[in-house]
Amino acid sequence: MKALWFNWVRIAAVAAIAVSSTAPGLAQEPLPSWNDTGPKKAIVAFVERVTRQGSADFVPLAERIATFDNDGTLWAEQPLYVQLVFALDRVKALAPLHPEWKDKEPFASLLKGDLKGALAGGESAIFQIVTVTHSGMTTGEFETIVGDWIATARHPKTGKLYTEMVYQPMLELLAYLRANGFKTFIVSGGGIDFMRVFAERVYGVPPEQVIGSSGKLSFELRDGKPRLMKLPELDFNGDKVGKPVAIQMHIGRHPIAAFGNSDGDLQMLEWARQGAGVRFALIVHHTDAAREWAYDRNSSIGRLDHALDAAEAEGWTVVDMKNDWKTIFP
Amino acid sequence: MKALWFNWVRIAAVAAIAVSSTAPGLAQEPLPSWNDTGPKKAIVAFVERVTRQGSADFVPLAERIATFDNDGTLWAEQPLYVQLVFALDRVKALAPLHPEWKDKEPFASLLKGDLKGALAGGESAIFQIVTVTHSGMTTGEFETIVGDWIATARHPKTGKLYTEMVYQPMLELLAYLRANGFKTFIVSGGGIDFMRVFAERVYGVPPEQVIGSSGKLSFELRDGKPRLMKLPELDFNGDKVGKPVAIQMHIGRHPIAAFGNSDGDLQMLEWARQGAGVRFALIVHHTDAAREWAYDRNSSIGRLDHALDAAEAEGWTVVDMKNDWKTIFP
Repeated sequence: MKALWFNWVRIAAVAAIAVSSTAPGLAQEPLPSWNDTGPKKAIVAFVERVTRQGSADFVPLAERIATFDNDGTLWAEQPLYVQLVFALDRVKALAPLHPEWKDKEPFASLLKGDLKGALAGGESAIFQIVTVTHSGMTTGEFETIVGDWIATARHPKTGKLYTEMVYQPMLELLAYLRANGFKTFIVSGGGIDFMRVFAERVYGVPPEQVIGSSGKLSFELRDGKPRLMKLPELDFNGDKVGKPVAIQMHIGRHPIAAFGNSDGDLQMLEWARQGAGVRFALIVHHTDAAREWAYDRNSSIGRLDHALDAAEAEGWTVVDMKNDWKTIFP
Repeated sequence: MKALWFNWVRIAAVAAIAVSSTAPGLAQEPLPSWNDTGPKKAIVAFVERVTRQGSADFVPLAERIATFDNDGTLWAEQPLYVQLVFALDRVKALAPLHPEWKDKEPFASLLKGDLKGALAGGESAIFQIVTVTHSGMTTGEFETIVGDWIATARHPKTGKLYTEMVYQPMLELLAYLRANGFKTFIVSGGGIDFMRVFAERVYGVPPEQVIGSSGKLSFELRDGKPRLMKLPELDFNGDKVGKPVAIQMHIGRHPIAAFGNSDGDLQMLEWARQGAGVRFALIVHHTDAAREWAYDRNSSIGRLDHALDAAEAEGWTVVDMKNDWKTIFP
């Protein structure tokens, strides 16, 4: 009984892939938006090694876990993290209900349009902004607020929807890994319930495979009906050392492949490299000021410094966006 | 791009099931260990309603989430929760390293074989026992300890391995739901990393679909290699109101079916019943003193009192183990 049903659905899935991938419509080159340079070759070589039956490096389906950072790895994070833009927009929307904000930082500066002044308070200012915009409602109400915002908010530079500022090569990579039996997870320092609103539609990653930072929740009954209230208290910080912890709590085994773009991903990449067998670690290096942005060691958003050193020392794959990607956005 | 890959693997999986289920070997009656009584009929009717294409109650694959309690729902919990037996065995194994335990409760009583005396300290005693046996090692070391124990420890009454004291009808139910495109999750008050050691082999539920209580983890480097240490501090209590919270944190959407056996599952069952559309809630009622145990409102282990009232009031399905199950154990 046990052996029979163990992983049955996923085995059936890959069997179906094996059959259908011989159909003409699907027999296309993987990763079409990637140039035929080192990173693409490294990805394809890794996937072929771990999926070839009988190979010494073969990895069973259940262990094909791949984890992706979100901001700067799957979508653009400049000039500000998208979730922070959301929070700033929400402060403006909520201001009429909070006349006291006129005299209280960081809200006062923010409402005058002085973003720099508002953020001068550093992490404490950001925490206050996130708290007032991410708590005090049910989980369902928050999903509706985020859903309405992300459907219409546009990037200040490109005028695109934020969900159009995802990286086409990374969408192809997610799909390529899934077509080879991988389970793809997002492991972000961003808010878990913020990302879940769009991750399935945009990335094909269902809510249960989205991991991130979170606030505390409280179970309550209203008129006999249960609901979960979002409390103004941090529950878990999913950045940096939080990433391996989050991976353990939500997934419970090591990824065999991990993808990031900043120092916030360093511990996740190191964690993925643990254990016997072939492992894959990749960093997206933002080098394309013309088509996207160019930044690394000195950026306050998405700083890539120690992780770039580690990539060199440990031989991780580094994507040079300018030269390795044919297309950036879909 | 998005639409193409969205849920592609799971759609392929179910396509494969649709094809292969016409093969002779698999064309068997579902739930063979269930008598043809009310609960089996209710389960099959529910699954047919939500999976029939074009039906008003059809539920897309991605939303077919089913959550199961573990202790008393998937395996036996009498005369003591299995994880507590593990902890007691570990206290004995660790005693030579802790001479001070001879004079310190609850350890002193426990080492004299006086379980009642040891547990007289109530929750505080249990917390101490769990803490000393579940922290101070890496996550990998803990997995090895549990794996070694569960491979050999035997139930005091039946002499079976604990992993042989799972309920055959529930194994069939898990498999039946998965064959119909459901993702099956364990949502337990028990320890997440304890259950994950055997859940995949025994239940076909991979680690990333096991949810439970947890202790805090700390990311550390030893000799330049990262590891996660288990700290002596509760991170999350996954029982009672913790179950809907855990479901939101780990799954991010409502289950459409939930299965439990005690008051610890009440909030999960209520949570699963939220939202529009058909929902299914089932309680395993332990009524078979001959083949298993008979207990409910007055049991200190797995008390079923308020949830039994709720089942009656809300029309949940209640399994009468004695009359509804042909077989209990595999």
